[in-house]
Amino acid sequence: MPKIVDHETRREEIAEALWRVVRRDGIRAASVRTIAAEAGWSPGAVRYYFPDQDGLLSFAMDLVTRRVTQRIEALDAKGSPTTVVLRYLEEALPLDAERRAEFDVWIAFMAQAQAESGAGTLHEHVDTVHNGLRQLCESLLQALAQAGVLKEGVDLRREVERLHAVIDGLALHAAIQPDRTTPTRVRQLLRLHVESLLA
Amino acid sequence: MPKIVDHETRREEIAEALWRVVRRDGIRAASVRTIAAEAGWSPGAVRYYFPDQDGLLSFAMDLVTRRVTQRIEALDAKGSPTTVVLRYLEEALPLDAERRAEFDVWIAFMAQAQAESGAGTLHEHVDTVHNGLRQLCESLLQALAQAGVLKEGVDLRREVERLHAVIDGLALHAAIQPDRTTPTRVRQLLRLHVESLLA
Repeated sequence: MPKIVDHETRREEIAEALWRVVRRDGIRAASVRTIAAEAGWSPGAVRYYFPDQDGLLSFAMDLVTRRVTQRIEALDAKGSPTTVVLRYLEEALPLDAERRAEFDVWIAFMAQAQAESGAGTLHEHVDTVHNGLRQLCESLLQALAQAGVLKEGVDLRREVERLHAVIDGLALHAAIQPDRTTPTRVRQLLRLHVESLLA
Repeated sequence: MPKIVDHETRREEIAEALWRVVRRDGIRAASVRTIAAEAGWSPGAVRYYFPDQDGLLSFAMDLVTRRVTQRIEALDAKGSPTTVVLRYLEEALPLDAERRAEFDVWIAFMAQAQAESGAGTLHEHVDTVHNGLRQLCESLLQALAQAGVLKEGVDLRREVERLHAVIDGLALHAAIQPDRTTPTRVRQLLRLHVESLLA
């Protein structure tokens, strides 16, 4: 089925062009026109895959999700339970240029979904990403519980929510004031939080 | 100086019209045109005060800051230290329709500032709001320290940053999944966090 392979290749090319535009000029600069120019295509060719701006934004968000998932799957689980937990969580935080670009896409995506009333495709998509990060927090805290290192009396269900809030709050602060909430500071605060849950 | 009084009154009228539009249709619906229609003015009259969309967004953000500040100043300081701290922090969280509208303005404002490269008026404004909430967290934790109820060995400076991250993370989650992160849940998690800092 050579036609399908072609479509996949073309989508990958668009993904790469989109990512270059986002990293260089920010997510707001990503339009059918700018991505076509970046890829060396006609706007019509890009529009064949993404008829509107929402479709493009969804594609960008998919790309971010895939990138984060791939990085997380590639991590090794060696080290103390705390070290491993921090290693996983840091993949979801904007600690370098790549992850800052990813977080910018997420913020733009979320703000756009918030601005729309009712449920729509963007909303569903935001839910999926949001649930994905919460599930990661849940798996990691469960791993700590199984390793027997959690403090006695910890309410796991609530701590999942609190950890998830800490992650998103830190990510937001790193995006808003990168000079103050530096990668080093984010790592320190995340460690402080995880250690506060340990016996 | 009757002219200045007039300008102030007109700005207040625009503020009220803007707020009605934001609550009813979301911040993205707020434009010179929709606000003029809401206030029963000509677009030109609104444009005299707000020549562009950024000016309008800044005005909306000012309005939010003023509202939150007024509510916080009106609070009483009766009750246990924890009760008082939670009472103050809850004013910054989207726990009812009014505060959800305020948070939507903040998210839109912040996303817009992130999308702009370099420093601009929006960036300065985001910094001011962000610093204001951090200073509130700082004052409240200092009050707990002075009341002698904090756990021994608490690093006040880092705990200010962590509390600030928890607040913004919870606010974000309440906006993203209001059915899951309900006002009751937000209050429980905030209490859990504050209590985790106490002796």
